[in-house]
Amino acid sequence: MQRHFADDLIRRQRELEHPLCVGLDPHLDRIPALFRQGSMEPSAPRTAVAIEAFLAAILDRLGDRVAVVKPQIAFFERLGWRGLEVLARIVERARGQGLQVLLDAKRGDIGSTAAGYAAAYLGPQAAPTCDAMTLNPYLGRDALAPFLATARECGRGLFVLVKTSNPGSGDFQDQRLEDGRALFEAVAEALAKDAHELRGPVTGWSSLGVVVGATYPGESERVRARLPHSLFLVPGYGAQGGDASAALKGFVRGPDGRLEGGLVNSSRGILFPPGSDTADAAAWEGAIDEALARAIGELAEASV
Amino acid sequence: MQRHFADDLIRRQRELEHPLCVGLDPHLDRIPALFRQGSMEPSAPRTAVAIEAFLAAILDRLGDRVAVVKPQIAFFERLGWRGLEVLARIVERARGQGLQVLLDAKRGDIGSTAAGYAAAYLGPQAAPTCDAMTLNPYLGRDALAPFLATARECGRGLFVLVKTSNPGSGDFQDQRLEDGRALFEAVAEALAKDAHELRGPVTGWSSLGVVVGATYPGESERVRARLPHSLFLVPGYGAQGGDASAALKGFVRGPDGRLEGGLVNSSRGILFPPGSDTADAAAWEGAIDEALARAIGELAEASV
Repeated sequence: MQRHFADDLIRRQRELEHPLCVGLDPHLDRIPALFRQGSMEPSAPRTAVAIEAFLAAILDRLGDRVAVVKPQIAFFERLGWRGLEVLARIVERARGQGLQVLLDAKRGDIGSTAAGYAAAYLGPQAAPTCDAMTLNPYLGRDALAPFLATARECGRGLFVLVKTSNPGSGDFQDQRLEDGRALFEAVAEALAKDAHELRGPVTGWSSLGVVVGATYPGESERVRARLPHSLFLVPGYGAQGGDASAALKGFVRGPDGRLEGGLVNSSRGILFPPGSDTADAAAWEGAIDEALARAIGELAEASV
Repeated sequence: MQRHFADDLIRRQRELEHPLCVGLDPHLDRIPALFRQGSMEPSAPRTAVAIEAFLAAILDRLGDRVAVVKPQIAFFERLGWRGLEVLARIVERARGQGLQVLLDAKRGDIGSTAAGYAAAYLGPQAAPTCDAMTLNPYLGRDALAPFLATARECGRGLFVLVKTSNPGSGDFQDQRLEDGRALFEAVAEALAKDAHELRGPVTGWSSLGVVVGATYPGESERVRARLPHSLFLVPGYGAQGGDASAALKGFVRGPDGRLEGGLVNSSRGILFPPGSDTADAAAWEGAIDEALARAIGELAEASV
């Protein structure tokens, strides 16, 4: 059977009873003592080794307790080509243990270049092959088209930036258009037809999703009104200040009565919780397990 | 003396008497017979070898006839980590022969992630170290701030997408705001203060530049009115249908009477001109030299 990103994700989330996504953002200056190697110069081979060991250990802690991880490619690019090599191995490892991988790359470019990015990360010959990726809409709909074609063909997911979690997201996204809509609402509306077409046969959720920050719950509801079937990727939960109920704004009741319709990302809150900067393996594992259990618990409870 | 991207570029362009920038977009399916290796599977090591040999030969043809090259990172990412390794070596080679390197990456992300990208490509420990890069403004001004800080500190250049060359650029960039401006004009205005601050001591041109497509000359003039000191990166000349005089809209008369104030990019027109898909080295060199001479001639003539 043809895979479908949104169907696969929602079915797994229903089993797990929470929408947590763990962001893999290996900040060089926050890698715990247990994994650090030397002074962590970005292009040093041993830095790449340290980052890979850290992320592999994180994946071990996640086990089968989450549906999806979200590597932020900037932190891998920061290490040069060795970072991309680590990314490829971590993506393969995550998928090998049954996790979906959403690559946070926020790419956007004109036609032939967009096709290059789509092929690089989502296509049949991609390396690494990811299940979904994030996109920037500024260049317009023709720049999204090659990604949509690949998503359709290979069953992948896309998340287009609509309303981001940062304080400055209002500078352009909130600009009021002459017809009264905010720009981010116009972007959401421009996606509606494709989002409808990419709905999954099992759950009805669409593989064309959007990014809507947990820090802007009011805006989430306005996006949901325009895109009833799009999954929301919600960054900004935890470290960036959004709480669980704000993160779930725009989610809707699923068949089991729980809120569903997206993934709520936590990166630093899971990767670098209090007590995790230690050289003691058991203490480190305990700190990660505790942070993960707390985030899952908060989101599961807020979803009921 | 502290380097300054815009000063360095404009002084070199005044010596060369043309604003041509050569885009390094190694489309996998267009590599000439002289360099192709096997079936060019994207992740095969020999594909990376072929791409590197092709681009090194292109750099040899460019010699000291242009000021700047613009690698499009998507085509390197297409090859996986080996592609980034090739990019690093090509960037180093180009800079070693005195070319400036403008990385076309169109990155944009929230604060800490943006800082990661800035460090990856522009900072003192970057690998590869580029002279400038392209950015996407959709996330807002705080997402541009880490790039501006690095540009200021290290003398690098930035080019923010304002009005792109693709047919669909109007979808969002041309949206009319309630105050009557188009969105792209609001983006240009939001850059004005920083652009003024990043002016070079020698030429007065700013290292905070913008991307304005050759396919939209009217819009170029509206951007120039708002950003009198910003360099324009003009894509869309040649293969995308913009002609030399359209590409120079928004340029202004320099001290020598020639039009200046930006760089006009040609990628496919120089890399894959008619007659260049040959296994004959002399014929290939002739085709590239001819395409280069024609583009330089057209732009030099239109600049007078």
